[in-house]
Amino acid sequence: MQDQSSSGAKRWGARFATAPDARSEAFTSSIMFDNRFVREDIRGSVAHVRMLGRQGIIGADDAAQIEDGLWQVWDEADEGSFTFSLADEDIHTAVERRLRELIGPVQGKLHTARSRNDQVATDTRLWTKGAIFELTAGVAELIDALLSIAAANMDAVMPGYTHTQRAQPVIVAHHLLAYVAMLDRDLDRLRDAYRRLDSLPLGAAALAGSTFPIDRASVAADLGFATIAANSLDAVADRDYVLDVMYTCSTIAVHISRLAGELVAWSSGEFKFVELSDAFTTGSSIMPQKKNPDVAEIARGKTGRVFGHLFGLLTVIKGLPLTYNSDLQEDKESLFDTVDTMLAVLRVMPPVVETMRINRENMAAAAVSDFSLATDAADLLARNGVPFREAHEVVGRLVRQCIERGITFVELTDDEWHSIHPVFGKEHPPATAWESVCARDVPGGTAPTRVAAAHATATKDLDAARAWLIARQAELSAVMQRNSTGPN
Amino acid sequence: MQDQSSSGAKRWGARFATAPDARSEAFTSSIMFDNRFVREDIRGSVAHVRMLGRQGIIGADDAAQIEDGLWQVWDEADEGSFTFSLADEDIHTAVERRLRELIGPVQGKLHTARSRNDQVATDTRLWTKGAIFELTAGVAELIDALLSIAAANMDAVMPGYTHTQRAQPVIVAHHLLAYVAMLDRDLDRLRDAYRRLDSLPLGAAALAGSTFPIDRASVAADLGFATIAANSLDAVADRDYVLDVMYTCSTIAVHISRLAGELVAWSSGEFKFVELSDAFTTGSSIMPQKKNPDVAEIARGKTGRVFGHLFGLLTVIKGLPLTYNSDLQEDKESLFDTVDTMLAVLRVMPPVVETMRINRENMAAAAVSDFSLATDAADLLARNGVPFREAHEVVGRLVRQCIERGITFVELTDDEWHSIHPVFGKEHPPATAWESVCARDVPGGTAPTRVAAAHATATKDLDAARAWLIARQAELSAVMQRNSTGPN
Amino acid sequence: MQDQSSSGAKRWGARFATAPDARSEAFTSSIMFDNRFVREDIRGSVAHVRMLGRQGIIGADDAAQIEDGLWQVWDEADEGSFTFSLADEDIHTAVERRLRELIGPVQGKLHTARSRNDQVATDTRLWTKGAIFELTAGVAELIDALLSIAAANMDAVMPGYTHTQRAQPVIVAHHLLAYVAMLDRDLDRLRDAYRRLDSLPLGAAALAGSTFPIDRASVAADLGFATIAANSLDAVADRDYVLDVMYTCSTIAVHISRLAGELVAWSSGEFKFVELSDAFTTGSSIMPQKKNPDVAEIARGKTGRVFGHLFGLLTVIKGLPLTYNSDLQEDKESLFDTVDTMLAVLRVMPPVVETMRINRENMAAAAVSDFSLATDAADLLARNGVPFREAHEVVGRLVRQCIERGITFVELTDDEWHSIHPVFGKEHPPATAWESVCARDVPGGTAPTRVAAAHATATKDLDAARAWLIARQAELSAVMQRNSTGPN
Amino acid sequence: MQDQSSSGAKRWGARFATAPDARSEAFTSSIMFDNRFVREDIRGSVAHVRMLGRQGIIGADDAAQIEDGLWQVWDEADEGSFTFSLADEDIHTAVERRLRELIGPVQGKLHTARSRNDQVATDTRLWTKGAIFELTAGVAELIDALLSIAAANMDAVMPGYTHTQRAQPVIVAHHLLAYVAMLDRDLDRLRDAYRRLDSLPLGAAALAGSTFPIDRASVAADLGFATIAANSLDAVADRDYVLDVMYTCSTIAVHISRLAGELVAWSSGEFKFVELSDAFTTGSSIMPQKKNPDVAEIARGKTGRVFGHLFGLLTVIKGLPLTYNSDLQEDKESLFDTVDTMLAVLRVMPPVVETMRINRENMAAAAVSDFSLATDAADLLARNGVPFREAHEVVGRLVRQCIERGITFVELTDDEWHSIHPVFGKEHPPATAWESVCARDVPGGTAPTRVAAAHATATKDLDAARAWLIARQAELSAVMQRNSTGPN
Repeated sequence: MQDQSSSGAKRWGARFATAPDARSEAFTSSIMFDNRFVREDIRGSVAHVRMLGRQGIIGADDAAQIEDGLWQVWDEADEGSFTFSLADEDIHTAVERRLRELIGPVQGKLHTARSRNDQVATDTRLWTKGAIFELTAGVAELIDALLSIAAANMDAVMPGYTHTQRAQPVIVAHHLLAYVAMLDRDLDRLRDAYRRLDSLPLGAAALAGSTFPIDRASVAADLGFATIAANSLDAVADRDYVLDVMYTCSTIAVHISRLAGELVAWSSGEFKFVELSDAFTTGSSIMPQKKNPDVAEIARGKTGRVFGHLFGLLTVIKGLPLTYNSDLQEDKESLFDTVDTMLAVLRVMPPVVETMRINRENMAAAAVSDFSLATDAADLLARNGVPFREAHEVVGRLVRQCIERGITFVELTDDEWHSIHPVFGKEHPPATAWESVCARDVPGGTAPTRVAAAHATATKDLDAARAWLIARQAELSAVMQRNSTGPN
Repeated sequence: MQDQSSSGAKRWGARFATAPDARSEAFTSSIMFDNRFVREDIRGSVAHVRMLGRQGIIGADDAAQIEDGLWQVWDEADEGSFTFSLADEDIHTAVERRLRELIGPVQGKLHTARSRNDQVATDTRLWTKGAIFELTAGVAELIDALLSIAAANMDAVMPGYTHTQRAQPVIVAHHLLAYVAMLDRDLDRLRDAYRRLDSLPLGAAALAGSTFPIDRASVAADLGFATIAANSLDAVADRDYVLDVMYTCSTIAVHISRLAGELVAWSSGEFKFVELSDAFTTGSSIMPQKKNPDVAEIARGKTGRVFGHLFGLLTVIKGLPLTYNSDLQEDKESLFDTVDTMLAVLRVMPPVVETMRINRENMAAAAVSDFSLATDAADLLARNGVPFREAHEVVGRLVRQCIERGITFVELTDDEWHSIHPVFGKEHPPATAWESVCARDVPGGTAPTRVAAAHATATKDLDAARAWLIARQAELSAVMQRNSTGPN
Repeated sequence: MQDQSSSGAKRWGARFATAPDARSEAFTSSIMFDNRFVREDIRGSVAHVRMLGRQGIIGADDAAQIEDGLWQVWDEADEGSFTFSLADEDIHTAVERRLRELIGPVQGKLHTARSRNDQVATDTRLWTKGAIFELTAGVAELIDALLSIAAANMDAVMPGYTHTQRAQPVIVAHHLLAYVAMLDRDLDRLRDAYRRLDSLPLGAAALAGSTFPIDRASVAADLGFATIAANSLDAVADRDYVLDVMYTCSTIAVHISRLAGELVAWSSGEFKFVELSDAFTTGSSIMPQKKNPDVAEIARGKTGRVFGHLFGLLTVIKGLPLTYNSDLQEDKESLFDTVDTMLAVLRVMPPVVETMRINRENMAAAAVSDFSLATDAADLLARNGVPFREAHEVVGRLVRQCIERGITFVELTDDEWHSIHPVFGKEHPPATAWESVCARDVPGGTAPTRVAAAHATATKDLDAARAWLIARQAELSAVMQRNSTGPN
Repeated sequence: MQDQSSSGAKRWGARFATAPDARSEAFTSSIMFDNRFVREDIRGSVAHVRMLGRQGIIGADDAAQIEDGLWQVWDEADEGSFTFSLADEDIHTAVERRLRELIGPVQGKLHTARSRNDQVATDTRLWTKGAIFELTAGVAELIDALLSIAAANMDAVMPGYTHTQRAQPVIVAHHLLAYVAMLDRDLDRLRDAYRRLDSLPLGAAALAGSTFPIDRASVAADLGFATIAANSLDAVADRDYVLDVMYTCSTIAVHISRLAGELVAWSSGEFKFVELSDAFTTGSSIMPQKKNPDVAEIARGKTGRVFGHLFGLLTVIKGLPLTYNSDLQEDKESLFDTVDTMLAVLRVMPPVVETMRINRENMAAAAVSDFSLATDAADLLARNGVPFREAHEVVGRLVRQCIERGITFVELTDDEWHSIHPVFGKEHPPATAWESVCARDVPGGTAPTRVAAAHATATKDLDAARAWLIARQAELSAVMQRNSTGPN
């Protein structure tokens, strides 16, 4: 019996009396975005066909011929000579179509014991592994940049803020390390997302498993998956692994939005805490003096987009019956744009941070203004037996008086100090930001030794994260190369 | 004094000591998406430069020369010969750069008395007008398709549902007209959005207005805006007009998601209410028998994306200080994708609806099953003086008995009817779906004459909506053509 | 036949063999939140029963007796003596239960020709009308506060910002009027939402209309609705009217979040532009000196909640089949919390704005710093024939030189001015913020006369909005009072 | 010096000249919702004051007296006699106020070396631990219910669906186990969330750490935290631990929404796959026959609310500067409502699942209809050497012919089978659903032995999850009881 492909380019045309409408084809085709999976798709097919051969489901010669053909398509994709059109429907169809052109009807044996449903889930998981690694690398680079500028500012002080009000002085490095702490949690989330997605859907076939004696474990080994998906229906209906990555990108974006927002504020004429490099700012078409923190603003703005994709996909999946529904096709563009957006931000933020000039003088001046050392004064009383609540009130009244008189603490005379409270007659509270930060000598606090210790720990954590990344990336690289036979 | 453009491609480079970093440029450049505004941008510049000339702000000859040059760029854009690169930063810069190449330094006079801030707001509003028209046309086409299939099904019955349970029979056309009612509200929202955005930002300049004696009203007239933006700060900080369109797309998407979901359900083996055309369905790569309602599923799935964009932009704007911030640059891609997505759905849904085959027999059989005429029985009692609450209980018990005996109402004997309630001894409740629907003869109800009246009204409303559209589109076309001098 | 209510508190129990599980009852009962509709529910029932009587669907005496009983429940609700429990399921059931206790079995005739589906839609619309009025009043009050503080600051200047960078000086009132412009659009959206919801669902019954000869138009007139819902299925399936209000609250919240964010920034030690009243700030439990802009922060924070509710309800409705589904029950709590949240914000923001002290000196000093008058210098060149692009470059270079020399424009000598450009040899650019703002004398610009005109217009617009509100509220009040017979 | 509390109920009043406005107080007070933290707040204070005593920061006697007083407040809270008002501002203030009433001015020493900022973060984390446990228990119960009904349906078949179209038969238990697989991932996410939040903020004080020689590790041990927060600024600015729980609730809600949606569909007159118990359904006020899957619908509807809260809080945090801002106060109500909503759903869904009657006959009949065994036929050809693509086409054409002739596979004669393909002359494809499911004998597939194995594994996983839960709950219980001194 001869090749029936003449009945239509589609892989499913025989049951249909009429061809697809062009509008329908344009609307349902995913080839224009899922072609990003071309390598994952070929690699998955290679693993599948090898297993078919090994298990005797198809002949060993057929399997070898198909594998050779697949690597040819791989080469064409690498060279950019592999082309496709809307009519190809999706990347899976395009690869098979090209394969048939190259090796003829034997191609028709490749799709034995599988479906596009488990195939696309496998492609997406393979691709997402790579995305998680790039995100991890990007977050690590931002941490690196923060650590390096923190290292250079272990002896600089700035105001710590609550409610956007100067609150207590902190070491600049301490402030920067707060962002490192946030990003460390994001690295943790990325690893969790990786662990949960590291399971092979292939073998679920359309939804119920295959009637052929396939060996899923060997395919998983070939493709570097830690395990196989345990339920065939779930394997094709599930998109949690996309949601996990999108959610993690949302928290990364939130953290960066806070940092970016601070850079915008610190660059303002009011703060003048940092000066961003000319190379990472832009001007105005009308106002000759302007230097705008464009990159930081856009980085902050991208947050909305990342949230939007997460919520879009949550909405898509909500209430869908099992198993695969075409609504799920919406997962890809939003995943791609989420990852691309996040990587673009992670690429540009490290140099922004590294090239900015920190204005230590302005920071230091602000650090002691607005009575930022008032807590130190209250603490002094408390250390001398005054209940803290009472100490707080004493100093609160003092602040009010100073404001009314238009003076600061340092302008008070010894007598005035004494009249406020006998304790102050014996000892004045700290008068410099440095004294104040040194006094906060508790684990996690802003005292110099504590900040140095935190910096060292954060550096070690970064090294560990990168070691994890390198090991995982090596595994994936071993899988995702021409003629790969999987890790080891 | 000679052309200073050598100092950099950027329109603001003189104040900067170093050139932008390539990463920064790639991150901040919007040219790759805002080039969609090329015609709006040129047209806005033409109106602006004419006014500059008329007001004597620049020489009349200069103005004429610039206008000529702008129309040349317009022609190049039409022919596809107008090219740009990442370094062009945005479409405004690209147009000016090309203009300078064409007409030399006199180009430098074009940007007098304006800023990119008011320019981009003007471009976006002009573009959005066109988008609102296309959306209106798309919604109208879907209404048209629904009206046409409703007209063909004025005498067919189906189950009306509550809680996805068969409730009472309705006429098929009545069910379809419910969607027309929803979409009519969307047309209303589109008109409201149009009315609110029909105001010209140009003249706000960077944020505070211009120091030149510009004539904003004449520019508004030239560009077909009903009025001018009343506050210059708001004019460049506001993106409500994008939100309004996105929100309206969200309600359109919600309505279509309900329709699409019903088509998916109705195509199932369980319902078998409709058969979608082969031309608007797809098959399976593994299961030869499958015919999937792909288009309807994807249309439903797109809803998440539309919501995502709305929420993304709301998030972007939340908490931003006045006036323009680069975060707002995020408005464009999400607006474009929202409109493109919605138009794709609106293009494909009308033929899906028009080509589906309605299985009247299955619908009719389902319409009377599961005791769907029970309310009619209770109403009969109530019409004979039994308080409705009591009538409800009588019939409720009857339903329970029939279920226990495994029979339906029509299998009850006269004696049994009488024993249930004396009223039933004299008159049986309706036994057919048609009797039932005819009995619901109230405005807005499902009786045939009421449905016919509703259809006629909906047809008239559609005509009115299209008349509005044609009139508005004519105004915009008069503006958006080569050498246009505005409407009239 | 006697009262069957003993078969269960539920209005639908007869068909069921077993009573509801307590967990099910607790989960599905809405009485704990929909009791807010008690007056709307009673009023709707009164209009309904009057119509039943007028149409002879039930006896006139019965109708009168039921109406009397309903007003008794109304009085009990007013006095707080009307109680209900989880077992009442919803407010509709609770009212009927109480009515039966008061007037006996004749109560059973009230529910003739209606369903809870059209009843709850009617209640919600009536309640939402009131909510729209309160929101309108709240927005109007905030506009009022902004106008009053604007009026007091027509002669004060501040920096106008783009990218959070000082850009050009503006009049303080001009900045405040930008918020008025935003809020004016919100008033417009509220009116649109009102217009679209002003249509009566009652008469749709469960979903298909009623078999009784009801007169929907007279009920609409009695309840003050402009029209009746045109499709019975849509009437019970539609929640667009809730979405419209939620969306409008989202834009109100966005606008207020921008204002609140500015108040937070302006209160900071870096800006010191305003000092919020002690009465609208809070302190710290540990830092005696702190005075936090708590109210503004929380107002800004509430934005997320308002967005969340909108997004939540959109998600709920997406993909639901027609007509009513219990998922829609989720509309109420989110509508209530959206409106309550928004009203709380609108209640507290006007006094925050009115009681803040504006620090004109700091604002004025900031207004001219950072070369904010650079555009004026470039405009001066442009007015003297220099192409603006070139003028921009000349001044851009000048700014760079001044920064490198650490000076400002005013420190340049006449010779230096001349050497920069011959035009500057003859005329210096404006050196004060006031000159600069006066120069922006275009409609919508920041020149004093323009700001005064804008203030006058905004005041007139506010009056018009309030006149609309008063007229509509009077209509609703005429409906929502004991023994009301509707608006004349 | 005497007690100064007379200067105001607020803990920070001394610096302020005027008292808070009532509107401000009502708007900013959180006592009406954060009183849920009363036990966490007291327990945290106990741990704190013990440490203050141990470290000699306050006297041992004072510490003991304060601890005694705190346990008295604990008792009052247990008995319901601890009351508070709006003026108490928050639960921290209310507890201190009551403590002072009980023990006098020595109470004032409690707040030494801490702030409400680290206090509320500690309270929230403690509370969230408990919430995670309840969520874990709830998810486990739903898994249990699914496993139990799966166990009873290991020999029943139903249609497996893709695109809401019957695709291939599956075992009912296999379908239910797909939901178990989803919920297992949710348990994993809950554990991840727990691990990440298990770190003590207390000791961060306002933001910078304390000047007192506090021992954070001992407080962590007393309160059962695995570690201490490593950066004081992050400790008070971070709300990731709330987001993690909200996100996990979103995926739980998504999974349950799919299950609930299937129950609604399966209960319909079209499917008739299950009959929900009368105890977990409701009726109609107008239609006597109706039995509505109310609980499942509402459970599905709650999904929107859960998404909304996640989105709301992401929006709140986006772009906030360090460290604490009052916007973050919005975390509590949305966390509470998320957890409450989710627990309500998790409480009601297990009995819904357990009490439903599965209609095996209808499921079995549907399982073989619509040519659901077509893949088996194509597989038979492929096993006999026909390339699968070709086999797919052969069977696809056969399906088309059967549809046109109005027959099914079983009605084909031997000759007809042979004429379709020679292979079919020798062997017919499976004709029953049971043959078909047995043939899918691969790991994760629907063959009976595979499903049995999967059920056993899932049962073991559930046991492990519950063991984890019991161990963690024991730790927390050891902490959260009167006079607790922490876990051993």
